[in-house]
Amino acid sequence: MIGIFDSGVGGMTVARAIEQRCPGYPLVYFGDIARTPYGSKSSETIKKYSASNTDFLLEHRAKLIVIACNSAASAALPTLQKQYKVPILDVITPAVKRAAIISKNGRIGIIGTRATIKSGIYEQGINQERPGTRVISHPCPLLVPLVEEGWLGKQETKMIVRRYLHPLRTRQIDTLVLGCTHYPLLKHLIGPRIGRRVQLIDSSIEAARSVRSFLDTHPDLASQLHDPEKESRFFVSDLTETAHQLAAKIFGRPITLKKANA
Amino acid sequence: MIGIFDSGVGGMTVARAIEQRCPGYPLVYFGDIARTPYGSKSSETIKKYSASNTDFLLEHRAKLIVIACNSAASAALPTLQKQYKVPILDVITPAVKRAAIISKNGRIGIIGTRATIKSGIYEQGINQERPGTRVISHPCPLLVPLVEEGWLGKQETKMIVRRYLHPLRTRQIDTLVLGCTHYPLLKHLIGPRIGRRVQLIDSSIEAARSVRSFLDTHPDLASQLHDPEKESRFFVSDLTETAHQLAAKIFGRPITLKKANA
Repeated sequence: MIGIFDSGVGGMTVARAIEQRCPGYPLVYFGDIARTPYGSKSSETIKKYSASNTDFLLEHRAKLIVIACNSAASAALPTLQKQYKVPILDVITPAVKRAAIISKNGRIGIIGTRATIKSGIYEQGINQERPGTRVISHPCPLLVPLVEEGWLGKQETKMIVRRYLHPLRTRQIDTLVLGCTHYPLLKHLIGPRIGRRVQLIDSSIEAARSVRSFLDTHPDLASQLHDPEKESRFFVSDLTETAHQLAAKIFGRPITLKKANA
Repeated sequence: MIGIFDSGVGGMTVARAIEQRCPGYPLVYFGDIARTPYGSKSSETIKKYSASNTDFLLEHRAKLIVIACNSAASAALPTLQKQYKVPILDVITPAVKRAAIISKNGRIGIIGTRATIKSGIYEQGINQERPGTRVISHPCPLLVPLVEEGWLGKQETKMIVRRYLHPLRTRQIDTLVLGCTHYPLLKHLIGPRIGRRVQLIDSSIEAARSVRSFLDTHPDLASQLHDPEKESRFFVSDLTETAHQLAAKIFGRPITLKKANA
């Protein structure tokens, strides 16, 4: 199985993107709803939770791990890669590479949770890929609760999106990274408010592309993981109504969520 | 010590109210920021966390426990009272009694988190105190993240408060219970939007009154707990910047937060 974990249901946008780009590869998903959100927690706490989520996925026979949560990836990727032998991919690295390639004027905006932005990981990554790039980042802590409430089209959400994007609008960016797996669900609000000339990078789609490319370049592991008969499984550490609704919205079909502790 | 726990920093409104009404009684506070918010979690998960928080306070020599979190009180009060020998007070019972007494027309509104409202505990409590009362409740899940971001006066917060109160405005309530310890920080927005004729009941203040009255009626325990030399202590399961800011705002002075695991 391809193992995927997130702090909640946002990472399902990554699972969905992987499903579309890697058909025939069953997934095992773990969403840590009981301890969500990670974005406002300290790096030390996020590391501890990420390790227990990884253990859970390994017990469910994952042979490739995807960290589908920007906050977890920013705090815990190097630690997990040292700690475990299985390959561990994440949502940040592919988005960083893509942003560094497609920006024309070298001015890139990043939005994410407080934890992701504070870590500075996008800034460092982009400047390693393409030195001299100007990275302008801004935390948007209320977008996750707004998405989790399903307020995807409400006037208040539009105003909050506009307020958060305001400091980025005057900085001549030509590329904006959606550095949180919840944000693809707000693309329809973010696009018009940041301006048509700004290209959006969806970290969920980039993560799925990197999984596809990893499978293509590791045929032995790919053939072990390929099993079109097997169904994907979705676990969450807490069962809530909004989780069911959001999962169905993301996948466009009902998703069975099972409760489990990491 | 008087032990107080909450899912985060909202319960500090209770701690502050107790400090003002019970001077000379040192407090030990535990805010479970690492696992906040409780309001969107299942009852089973909230019970588990509440028990570990109580254990923590008992280890720090608490001899009286106050559940300063409506979500925790609604899910876990009877379970904790069975499980532990120390007296356990909460934020809901006193607010229920007060609402049942002061309402003139017998139509009472309740706002709170999803978990608190779903539990139906205010409705049951009020109808036990005063049968035949019409209780109209409405969940306001975004108010906690808005308060935790410090957005206490922003236009978006005003609009969201108005949207949440709208279903209550047409129902002729004369009393509104603020069924979440974060909401006192939004009183200045809630009051004008629900209408001047509606009396607000602040569950934090009612909880502090009930602690005062418990001490007055239990002089042996009160004299054990009274120790004007001893300073109150504040523990949180995760240290964040916003926690420091909010704590200082609530107490009107800087508060030293120490990190601890429950």
